[in-house]
Amino acid sequence: MLTGDMLRRSAERFPRKPAILWDGTSLSYRDLDLAANRLANALIDLGLAKGGKVGIISRNRTEYGITFFGAARSGGVLVNISVLYAPEELQYVLDKADVEILIFEHPFAEKVMAARANLPRIKTLICVGGEVEGAIPFEAILARGSEDHPPVDIHEDDPFSMTYTGGTTGRPKGVLTSHRNRMITAHTVMVEEAIDERDVVGIVTPLFHVAALNIMFQPAVLAGATSTFLSKWNVADFAAMARTTGMTAVFMVPTQASMVVSDPAFDAANYKTWTKLAFAGAPMPDWVQRELLEKLPDLKLTQIYGQSEVGVLTVLRHWYLPGKLGSIGRQGYNVDVAVVDRDGKPVKAGEIGELVSRGENVMLEYYKEPEQTANFFRNGWGWTGDLATVDEEGFVTLVDRSKDMIISGGENVYPKEIENVLYEHAAVAESAVFGIPDDKWGEVPVAYIQIKAGMVVSEDEIVAHCAERLARFKRPRVVKFVPDFPKTPIGKIQKNILREPYWRDREKKI
Amino acid sequence: MLTGDMLRRSAERFPRKPAILWDGTSLSYRDLDLAANRLANALIDLGLAKGGKVGIISRNRTEYGITFFGAARSGGVLVNISVLYAPEELQYVLDKADVEILIFEHPFAEKVMAARANLPRIKTLICVGGEVEGAIPFEAILARGSEDHPPVDIHEDDPFSMTYTGGTTGRPKGVLTSHRNRMITAHTVMVEEAIDERDVVGIVTPLFHVAALNIMFQPAVLAGATSTFLSKWNVADFAAMARTTGMTAVFMVPTQASMVVSDPAFDAANYKTWTKLAFAGAPMPDWVQRELLEKLPDLKLTQIYGQSEVGVLTVLRHWYLPGKLGSIGRQGYNVDVAVVDRDGKPVKAGEIGELVSRGENVMLEYYKEPEQTANFFRNGWGWTGDLATVDEEGFVTLVDRSKDMIISGGENVYPKEIENVLYEHAAVAESAVFGIPDDKWGEVPVAYIQIKAGMVVSEDEIVAHCAERLARFKRPRVVKFVPDFPKTPIGKIQKNILREPYWRDREKKI
Ligand SMILES: Nc1ncnc2c1ncn2[C@@H]1O[C@H](COP(=O)(O)O)[C@@H](O)[C@H]1O
Repeated sequence: MLTGDMLRRSAERFPRKPAILWDGTSLSYRDLDLAANRLANALIDLGLAKGGKVGIISRNRTEYGITFFGAARSGGVLVNISVLYAPEELQYVLDKADVEILIFEHPFAEKVMAARANLPRIKTLICVGGEVEGAIPFEAILARGSEDHPPVDIHEDDPFSMTYTGGTTGRPKGVLTSHRNRMITAHTVMVEEAIDERDVVGIVTPLFHVAALNIMFQPAVLAGATSTFLSKWNVADFAAMARTTGMTAVFMVPTQASMVVSDPAFDAANYKTWTKLAFAGAPMPDWVQRELLEKLPDLKLTQIYGQSEVGVLTVLRHWYLPGKLGSIGRQGYNVDVAVVDRDGKPVKAGEIGELVSRGENVMLEYYKEPEQTANFFRNGWGWTGDLATVDEEGFVTLVDRSKDMIISGGENVYPKEIENVLYEHAAVAESAVFGIPDDKWGEVPVAYIQIKAGMVVSEDEIVAHCAERLARFKRPRVVKFVPDFPKTPIGKIQKNILREPYWRDREKKI
Repeated sequence: MLTGDMLRRSAERFPRKPAILWDGTSLSYRDLDLAANRLANALIDLGLAKGGKVGIISRNRTEYGITFFGAARSGGVLVNISVLYAPEELQYVLDKADVEILIFEHPFAEKVMAARANLPRIKTLICVGGEVEGAIPFEAILARGSEDHPPVDIHEDDPFSMTYTGGTTGRPKGVLTSHRNRMITAHTVMVEEAIDERDVVGIVTPLFHVAALNIMFQPAVLAGATSTFLSKWNVADFAAMARTTGMTAVFMVPTQASMVVSDPAFDAANYKTWTKLAFAGAPMPDWVQRELLEKLPDLKLTQIYGQSEVGVLTVLRHWYLPGKLGSIGRQGYNVDVAVVDRDGKPVKAGEIGELVSRGENVMLEYYKEPEQTANFFRNGWGWTGDLATVDEEGFVTLVDRSKDMIISGGENVYPKEIENVLYEHAAVAESAVFGIPDDKWGEVPVAYIQIKAGMVVSEDEIVAHCAERLARFKRPRVVKFVPDFPKTPIGKIQKNILREPYWRDREKKI
């Protein structure tokens, strides 16, 4: 099924139903369908050839949804760019991605214009939500295009979308995916989270990332549900949106869930219709899950594990809670997943290996990164970089990212194990453990901790807490308290930033 | 996704879970998976080439499930044959289908041996559930084959299965479908009936028909649910099976549902776990639906409309009842359906046209029937032969089969409209209206009626009942009471048999 067909069929079935709610506005499925055709035709008229790159840099708003499906129907490739990139990064990404037509939201005009000066490949700028010299207004583009289905021959295996990964290390890499790749993921999510046409699905993480774009918005459209967009996360706006739109389902990163339960103004009345929460992207502390279920007993928690490169791989369905709390669940019904050793051979139950996947869900390539692509595809698998174990029943538990593993005195130390111990302390809201250089042991663990509002705790207490629960070589040598953490837009703690000062003068950065 | 992958993935996820329960036995997903490999390898060793035809003639039993997935993995085509065919019909079908290897259940040995005598193409006979001279026992075949995944390169678009249609008119036609065709239908059903891994799915119609095989068993395996097979329908056995296996979901034809609610021994305690009923295949009288809901208030009724040629096209989800009672629902989330005029142009809301479909769900062809295939595929659509209307919201209502339509004095008369009026009479259990020749009007309607147990009614009462509710030209001219109806194995009344005596001496059989 092509991406454009998902929308077309939902528009045929639910023409008058709202497809996208945003900021008090509502766009019906029929109108979204027609707008997507208009955009696709306009892009083609602007000279976009099959496989040509259309960039978008925008917060969540209705036009993002139109652009996603419009680009999909144009035969082009949509390059989804973080709104947080610094000008230099933005220029790097736009250049590397061969973007020809750039759609940007008004607040980012200055950054875009600055980058554009050095990017002769960009032929057309389109501005959403305002007017900028040198850019065509988005509405004018829509008005130009015909409402007919665009006359392009598109195949499921054609590339259609690029999202970025690598925010926690090095340069962002463009993950190029086909219609089929994301069709599989849209199915995994729709089926394994039981999203149906009655749902009102909150899109509260940024659409330029795979999680909101392909793991929530796309399945919502596939099912014919209504999506409700939040432009910028904050708890009060989320609560208001949930209440006013009758939100039933949402995808969140753990930080957001923890903000919801810790909200001093928390009021269950805002969440009366909310019954499904999917989360992923970073480890979710158990205390957040427990508090969520206390405060909202009807909420069904689905943990998913996904990655830009492979879509959704595993799902922990709500009926396995609390028994399997801590696991990321079983492989989705339509994907192939394994935990393997270095040679790609499945490890035994309980042994640590790397999570790998193969099949129709796996990306085409890192765009124009042949070396990194070759490094990703090895022994017939796509390698996620995440270490995990799998039990006799097929439930997977993440151990850590392979690059975050600390080797201390020859022993493997997994920061996540230490973080889990820290989360058992009532005062710890969030924590990050990473390795720093040590002349004797090679590396030793360090813990950075954010304390829950209103709590008090000392370094000694934390040290004592760990001493009771962890082998000596796993205990953090340094404990630091921080008011918050540097995070990627999708809520992952950027350990590379925390780690940097300690490693600056070393040659090998492990 | 290939058919074999559906089973493989469910076996990876739920190795120890029962895949098939039958007659007190249980086969786990892992064992089904291995048995399917064994059968596939054994078939290949027997000389089955890619696309070669394997026939099966068996009632529902575990070996049917093994055969389905084994054949799918062998690269061959499984020809699913009715156990009810007379010897001459059986020979016709086996010959026409080019069957090389025939798997048959013991009770049908005699019929098979008789047909076989004239079928030199059949190289190997395999007998299930007993021993027959000249046939290899099924277990011996399984014991021969390796457990490894068979080394065949299979593509989604390769043909893999044939079921038969045409039981109500003329010779049975073999509907040849690909892996992809049925993968789409398996998804339609899994998603639109919300089947999940927790379900225990009753297979109570014969597996040789698309309804049990592809519309219920295949989605159950896709979801990783347990299937529970009934060999031969009767209400008492069904009730016992539902109780002992904890059946949660089932597909039934309307006759079966009506037998359940009319069962003098009906006891809701047998159906405590039963929450989902899908039905299709023939019109379901409204009274049956109403009585079901009265007796089993937790039951969720899903009406589906399907056909051997196109799989499932429309679904009426339970939350539209009772508002949309009488409709067959909206198009499934992954299929394209329309109601069109003779030229293939969609009719306006409320107008009568023919139900058509196109896309990945539509069969490859009627096997070796190029003329009938060409007649099926016209103007870019596959034509179902069913007349219908569609309302503003996309809900489809069947009017009648186009070949059942009566033309009386130049007016179109739809038997189903008259049957619906008859069902409003409290004494009518089942009815069939059809056209008989008339010198003045061309054709006039006749009503055959089966009365509910314990009820009494006269022809005059029926005539009066119709006179109040139907225009003169739609009123049945003849009313006959019958103890039961001739039906196809899937429960469709064979109007051709009722009609035959009236038309015998006419040239044109309309
Ligand atoms: N829900 C339904 N209500 C009434 N008739 C149906 C329904 N579903 C299927 N049918 C009839 O069954 C035919 C398919 O027969 P078969 O190919 O043998 O499954 C369709 O073409 C319809 O005429």
